[in-house]
Amino acid sequence: MSKLTDVPKRILIGRALRSDRLGETLLPKRIALPVFASDPLSSVAYAPGEVLLVLSIAGVSAYHFSPWIALAVVVLMFTVVASYRQNVHAYPSGGGDYEVANTNLGPKAGLTVASALLVDYVLTVAVSISSGVENLGSAVPFVVENKVLCAVAIIVLLTLMNLRGVKESGSLFAIPTYVFVAGVFIMITWGAFKGLVLDDSMAAPTADYEIKPEHEGLAGFALVFLLLRAFSSGCAALTGVEAISNGVPAFRKPKSRNAATTLALMGGLAVTMFCGIIGLAMATDVHMAENPAKDLVHNGVPVGEDYVQDPVISQVAAAVFGDGTFFFILLAAATALVLFLAANTAYNGFPLLGSILAQDRYLPRQLHTRGDRLAFSNGIVLLAGAAALLVWIYGADSTRLIQLYIVGVFVSFTLSQIGMVRHWNRHLRTETDQAKRRHMVRSRAINTFGAFFTGLVLVVVLVTKFTHGAWVALLGMVIFYVTMSAIRKHYDRVSEEIAAPEGPSDDSVRPSRVHSLVLVSKIHRPTLRALAYAKLMRTDTLEALSVNVDPAETKALKAEWERRGIDVPLKVLDSPYREITRPVIEYVKNLRRESPRDAVSVIIPEYVVGHWYEHLLHNQSALRLKGRLLFTPGVMVTSVPYQLQSSEVAKKRARRRQEWNAPGSVRRGPAVERTKDSSKQS
Amino acid sequence: MSKLTDVPKRILIGRALRSDRLGETLLPKRIALPVFASDPLSSVAYAPGEVLLVLSIAGVSAYHFSPWIALAVVVLMFTVVASYRQNVHAYPSGGGDYEVANTNLGPKAGLTVASALLVDYVLTVAVSISSGVENLGSAVPFVVENKVLCAVAIIVLLTLMNLRGVKESGSLFAIPTYVFVAGVFIMITWGAFKGLVLDDSMAAPTADYEIKPEHEGLAGFALVFLLLRAFSSGCAALTGVEAISNGVPAFRKPKSRNAATTLALMGGLAVTMFCGIIGLAMATDVHMAENPAKDLVHNGVPVGEDYVQDPVISQVAAAVFGDGTFFFILLAAATALVLFLAANTAYNGFPLLGSILAQDRYLPRQLHTRGDRLAFSNGIVLLAGAAALLVWIYGADSTRLIQLYIVGVFVSFTLSQIGMVRHWNRHLRTETDQAKRRHMVRSRAINTFGAFFTGLVLVVVLVTKFTHGAWVALLGMVIFYVTMSAIRKHYDRVSEEIAAPEGPSDDSVRPSRVHSLVLVSKIHRPTLRALAYAKLMRTDTLEALSVNVDPAETKALKAEWERRGIDVPLKVLDSPYREITRPVIEYVKNLRRESPRDAVSVIIPEYVVGHWYEHLLHNQSALRLKGRLLFTPGVMVTSVPYQLQSSEVAKKRARRRQEWNAPGSVRRGPAVERTKDSSKQS
Repeated sequence: MSKLTDVPKRILIGRALRSDRLGETLLPKRIALPVFASDPLSSVAYAPGEVLLVLSIAGVSAYHFSPWIALAVVVLMFTVVASYRQNVHAYPSGGGDYEVANTNLGPKAGLTVASALLVDYVLTVAVSISSGVENLGSAVPFVVENKVLCAVAIIVLLTLMNLRGVKESGSLFAIPTYVFVAGVFIMITWGAFKGLVLDDSMAAPTADYEIKPEHEGLAGFALVFLLLRAFSSGCAALTGVEAISNGVPAFRKPKSRNAATTLALMGGLAVTMFCGIIGLAMATDVHMAENPAKDLVHNGVPVGEDYVQDPVISQVAAAVFGDGTFFFILLAAATALVLFLAANTAYNGFPLLGSILAQDRYLPRQLHTRGDRLAFSNGIVLLAGAAALLVWIYGADSTRLIQLYIVGVFVSFTLSQIGMVRHWNRHLRTETDQAKRRHMVRSRAINTFGAFFTGLVLVVVLVTKFTHGAWVALLGMVIFYVTMSAIRKHYDRVSEEIAAPEGPSDDSVRPSRVHSLVLVSKIHRPTLRALAYAKLMRTDTLEALSVNVDPAETKALKAEWERRGIDVPLKVLDSPYREITRPVIEYVKNLRRESPRDAVSVIIPEYVVGHWYEHLLHNQSALRLKGRLLFTPGVMVTSVPYQLQSSEVAKKRARRRQEWNAPGSVRRGPAVERTKDSSKQS
Repeated sequence: MSKLTDVPKRILIGRALRSDRLGETLLPKRIALPVFASDPLSSVAYAPGEVLLVLSIAGVSAYHFSPWIALAVVVLMFTVVASYRQNVHAYPSGGGDYEVANTNLGPKAGLTVASALLVDYVLTVAVSISSGVENLGSAVPFVVENKVLCAVAIIVLLTLMNLRGVKESGSLFAIPTYVFVAGVFIMITWGAFKGLVLDDSMAAPTADYEIKPEHEGLAGFALVFLLLRAFSSGCAALTGVEAISNGVPAFRKPKSRNAATTLALMGGLAVTMFCGIIGLAMATDVHMAENPAKDLVHNGVPVGEDYVQDPVISQVAAAVFGDGTFFFILLAAATALVLFLAANTAYNGFPLLGSILAQDRYLPRQLHTRGDRLAFSNGIVLLAGAAALLVWIYGADSTRLIQLYIVGVFVSFTLSQIGMVRHWNRHLRTETDQAKRRHMVRSRAINTFGAFFTGLVLVVVLVTKFTHGAWVALLGMVIFYVTMSAIRKHYDRVSEEIAAPEGPSDDSVRPSRVHSLVLVSKIHRPTLRALAYAKLMRTDTLEALSVNVDPAETKALKAEWERRGIDVPLKVLDSPYREITRPVIEYVKNLRRESPRDAVSVIIPEYVVGHWYEHLLHNQSALRLKGRLLFTPGVMVTSVPYQLQSSEVAKKRARRRQEWNAPGSVRRGPAVERTKDSSKQS
């Protein structure tokens, strides 16, 4: 049956490319930065705008709080980066937040972090692609007019690419990321130069718009709440910072140090870009409203439903470079591309985290297998489906989707940092070297502050955003948590059930003799092969078994059996209802009843075919019989395959499939390295 | 995987009822009549109306041709009944038209008949249910206002009933059929009495309507063509006549004679009802138009799109009994019920024909198994899907659907009768008894006339209806034909490929030694059981095989292996990419390369679980490995099952499923009888 469902998949996805498995190389910092930082860096494309949007609720006058909010985000970014630099040194195996929480705070905390990260991957895809579409739309209006369609199309495209197992290369990430970073820096520098030196008055497209505040003259608690909400939205800039801590094994040596340096670099770039964009937005009088249709006023008239509010970065670019200029379009394209790369990050991270969770038996065991195509495919399809659903529900509106985001990130930040504090406490208990102790105390202080600050932000995010959508993210986390706990419980229960008893003798497990039965319908090569193999087994008794569904055929079978002088007794079972399964099961049960200590070995000739439709034409009775036999205790079932010529096709296909290249391998680093590291840890 | 797809099925369909398999009894004529005749008798509910509809094209004046057309239908009916009485005597095995055509005209004719019948079953469902909804609608307006919805709902209901395997009982058919027949006869008698004796002027609801002819004053060839088209539509009354020839084994003895008598009874009832309804329609001035919206005129104004044209039988009933009276409603309900029973007939016939075709390898072999639930389910779902599609496309309009009908019936009528002529010719060549010869010559004459007449009708139907929809039916037949030929060709090719060579020695088939490998991941009960079984097999060598995906686990495994003193050597394969399949396949291939004449037996402990979701959690790696191993020549794969506690659930479910009661068993007769008969035939 699985063959059947493969067909549409194969039509869509095509054959996987054969690729060199040894092509996995370690990443130098200049490549590692774009590979890991496309997610956090790309978030400066939407985070500044979100801050302004929230502030606009209190009217444009509230915009003057934005530098303060930017400052808070910068402090938070430094805190988080500093904290994760400790993680990277302490846990070089790449388990990331899940490993830290699991090891130091126990499995429940670990599972919480894992659930949060899984939800976060889904949202990374939804938010990044929606924002990418909006950025692309500032240059290509068609895109923004068909937002949902385009966003879903891009999700489908990324999904197909990842299902095919496109080989990642560092430069794929490097070029757009560096173009994007360079573009933003040129924009900031050129903007600052024009504004400060040339004293050129740059105006954003919305500079002469007005904002109708939803709540005029907000003050006191309400104002504080609004500022906290704006800060929460700005925290979107921090998503993806933890990615490097998952990818330490992919770095060149000294791994941890290089990872820590890259982390610092990334943090520096991110805050500079974030602040630069906010600054330029202030300087060019960008006006953004949460509900532009009615709150954004132009010439005294609300702009209405048809108005498309361009992202802050594109408005600033329009002001600095001029709308529609080469630089404007280049930056819009680079921004969109980096955002799509950020989404692609989640496609790599989701199944990777899945395989780690499978190792701990929170997910089906087979997902553990590295680079297993089927496992990855399921993960990728699940991720894409959930993201597409969110995009569709929220109309590919990044502002609405961001309300759901961040919760997951800060849950894992906070738990990870608390875990790190425990980690240092534990090590401090045994460490005697004073220099090391000092270092640990310092690290602990950083992590403690990190835990405190990220925890505070988590509370702020929950309080300010719960009703705006954060509850959806929490619900997603609960669903993941409950499902994974249930799977783990199931595995634990089974593992207890099948635990081997001590001592050598266990009667129920050791039969004394084996009675072999070869199922025969006609005399042909598969049957003869099955009989030959059965004879080789030298079991205590051997019988051929046929079910009489057609008297004429049975008669012919008996005659040929005799004519050929086959030296195995042929037993024919009657089947008044032309059934196959039931008479065989009854016969086997009778054998078992007569001598309960004997085992029965049922040998079934099986056709091996090459096409899915051939499965429908062969082996169905055998498969069903096998399914039933497995329920009968004391029976083992042997398939003696007979490869039809058409099976060559399937053989080749299976081989090709195994050579499939799992996405995300670049950021995981070589398998051997990871295994070595992780065994050192455990 | 098949377990997964079972879930929605099970939720909808529920558990099959346990029923007594010996409850199959032979049918007396009084029960056989309604069981087999619900299809042909019910067609008098729409056939008379179709005749009037077509005639209306030439204006209401053309209605006076209707008695002549009725006469032609009656003659045809007598011819067909007389012909099939010969079939029933000559082929008592119940193979029906397919068997007759296959035996006498060769496999191509047989397959053509089979394709025609399969299409016809689909159309029986679509037409009967649409007409039933229209009849019900004359009493319950809601039904006719939501025609497509109601028709599809009834298809779904019948499908679920048949999937559940509801036990058919003769009385289920007897009561509504007899109520319907009695109702129609009372209506005819009472109508005739009122009209002729009381001289009461009865008027149908449409008596004072007028018909705007689409083609005024049609004459010559055009008129003949129209009359032939009207006759073609009237032939709808003949559908289902062949059903009895499929059901001879279900009759009490003397089977053939009883079947022939029932056939004659059915023919007599059908023509009386058909003529009676046409006569009453004339007497009560029923007006029906092909396009009532514009061609049916009331008080000088076309009735428009909202007008619902009631079936002729209900208009006549309204005239005779009065609209809304008890008798009127009773007859409408009985008519609808009989039509739904007629649709149910197809649910029984479709999978039954499928199992006969499977025996001749035109359909997947496993469908042959009598009463196999899965096979029947697939057939039922296919039938229901196709019928629902047609109902949806044609808006549940029985008039439009009838254009597609009849083609299939007359294809099988004609080929069957030609086959019978050949049959008699063949027998006459050898028969010497003069009395028997006379009888055969008489039968041959009847079948020859039958073949000629039905062939003529087939040509008329094709010519007059091709563009009206008959091409759809022909297309359906071609699709069935091509698919079934391809399946047969595949089986023939495979059968040639696997044909056993003569002579005892065939090196490629006979290995000399067996090397056994037991796959081990951990030491637990399933592993111990697999090891114990493997030892019992006494193969030439025995090794335990483990794949090192996690160094720590492998170390623990080795240690426990030694501690327990397991006397089987443990071989550990390295797997740098954490794969399981590839290292095992490589190892097996190496073994084969070293000693190509040896066979390798791979023994895999397998978990037997009870719930579909547990399948996702267990055995996946083993299953995939097995799939790959089967492609490797010289390998056999043994599953040693370990039944987890949860497997009890699945065991019970499987048992219940096997006791499922296939629909249509009443009309098939006991299995033993059929097998005996058919082996007598062959």
